[in-house]
Amino acid sequence: MTARLIDGKAAAASLRATVAAEVAKFRSATGRSPGLAVVLVGEDPASAVYVRSKGKATVEAGMQSIEHKLPADTSEAELLALVDQLNSDPAVDGILVQLPLPPQIDANKVITRIDPDKDVDGFNPVNAGRLAIGLPGFVPCTPLGCLKLLRAELGDLAGKHAVVIGRSNIVGKPVAMLLLAEHCTVTIAHSRTRNLPAVVRQADIVVAAVGRPNMVKGDWLKLHATVIDVGINRVEGDDGKSRLVGDVDFASAREIAGAITPVPGGVGPMTIACLIRNTLVSAARRDGYQLPEDL
Amino acid sequence: MTARLIDGKAAAASLRATVAAEVAKFRSATGRSPGLAVVLVGEDPASAVYVRSKGKATVEAGMQSIEHKLPADTSEAELLALVDQLNSDPAVDGILVQLPLPPQIDANKVITRIDPDKDVDGFNPVNAGRLAIGLPGFVPCTPLGCLKLLRAELGDLAGKHAVVIGRSNIVGKPVAMLLLAEHCTVTIAHSRTRNLPAVVRQADIVVAAVGRPNMVKGDWLKLHATVIDVGINRVEGDDGKSRLVGDVDFASAREIAGAITPVPGGVGPMTIACLIRNTLVSAARRDGYQLPEDL
Repeated sequence: MTARLIDGKAAAASLRATVAAEVAKFRSATGRSPGLAVVLVGEDPASAVYVRSKGKATVEAGMQSIEHKLPADTSEAELLALVDQLNSDPAVDGILVQLPLPPQIDANKVITRIDPDKDVDGFNPVNAGRLAIGLPGFVPCTPLGCLKLLRAELGDLAGKHAVVIGRSNIVGKPVAMLLLAEHCTVTIAHSRTRNLPAVVRQADIVVAAVGRPNMVKGDWLKLHATVIDVGINRVEGDDGKSRLVGDVDFASAREIAGAITPVPGGVGPMTIACLIRNTLVSAARRDGYQLPEDL
Repeated sequence: MTARLIDGKAAAASLRATVAAEVAKFRSATGRSPGLAVVLVGEDPASAVYVRSKGKATVEAGMQSIEHKLPADTSEAELLALVDQLNSDPAVDGILVQLPLPPQIDANKVITRIDPDKDVDGFNPVNAGRLAIGLPGFVPCTPLGCLKLLRAELGDLAGKHAVVIGRSNIVGKPVAMLLLAEHCTVTIAHSRTRNLPAVVRQADIVVAAVGRPNMVKGDWLKLHATVIDVGINRVEGDDGKSRLVGDVDFASAREIAGAITPVPGGVGPMTIACLIRNTLVSAARRDGYQLPEDL
């Protein structure tokens, strides 16, 4: 049997359409559009592409996109001053500082300076803490996208054993906290884990977020496991052309898994959809406006 | 073979002696004593005992104990005003509000109000977030005590599989984050976990923090596992007398485990020792004073 493909592109399009519909209602109720401020320092081409996509998705959802592009030699003090200004700007509901930042700027300092209640990326330690403790806050976009795909695929996650491979602050750890809140038994594995295949073989749910192309093999999986592949790795094929692959060896995994996200077209598209979702949620919280619970 | 007993009482006495010696040096270097403010609202007898023990340990270590006892009908606003005052008092290095609080007071609100840099209990979401992300902050005292016992028993924890049973904000989740930072593979199990004995049987390290007397049986354990029992449950014995037992069935577990904490005399005594350790660390950070790294 071959695994069902989890269509992240379709799920993201559907979430974006839902957000757009809710934005329209929010605008007629409050007379204003939610605003997302995106800050780009320097000219990293990949970052520029991300910022452009985010701006486009924001506008398509009926929200305001405010882009601040700063030169690569911007000082930390200048960037912090901009963050302060955006923190106090009532038109700004969400603030996103595109990473990575140039070496003269301490990214932790900048992220900690963003008002936690406008931190739609969910990277401020206050939001990491709220997630750990179970208080309302902002959850990072990629982990939230993983959770939404899993819920759509499996429904109730309670009691399932989830193995998260990777323990980064932006994916592995927040995914683990989200799945724990869904009442999964959660194992966090990483580069120091012994006998990783045996650990993964217990999982009803595998979330791979390590950045190593095709690392997780089909024969590591329990039959009919649900596999969420967060990796996006560029590799060169036999034909000399480069292509994107995940952290999971898709060809062998799809023969064992019950359902699996492809790369590209799996988790990737959910990230921006969750970003505009978070921005709308921020605007609604700030205005005391009630959104549907399951957004 | 019978498991080695992990003597928490001795470890706590040793940590308290180390803290006292460092406090003496801190006092001669800075001319002041670290101060711990403890706030008790109402007359819960168990809370009163805890507060008394904490004050005693603080003074024995050469630090100042400042106790604020408020009536049971204290309003939330009054308590928040006291927290604000302690936040801005330069003689106060640590603030601890004894839980539980009476029903008219929102404990989350109070804990969030404590200056994260004086939050020696480590319950403020900012400190939960710092722990999750790996930034310096304050780690809750009982989890820190567990880690210190494990390090003393096992040395390097990297690559060991730790199973944490229980996912509370004050023990299970912070213990999991600490062990992850030590490069353990970490599984968080709880009341919704399926086949808990099989999950526990994988563990090199078991941390039990569920509050169910004698729940974890010896035949759930891998041979020579290290067992940390955080539970403190009062049960009635066959003789009608009440006594304290842990979450682990000590009699059967000690036949399989390599090392195990008794209850009482295991994790319990470490909690207050870590509280005075955190208070000294806070004072040192606030004064830019250098402490030994492994304190």
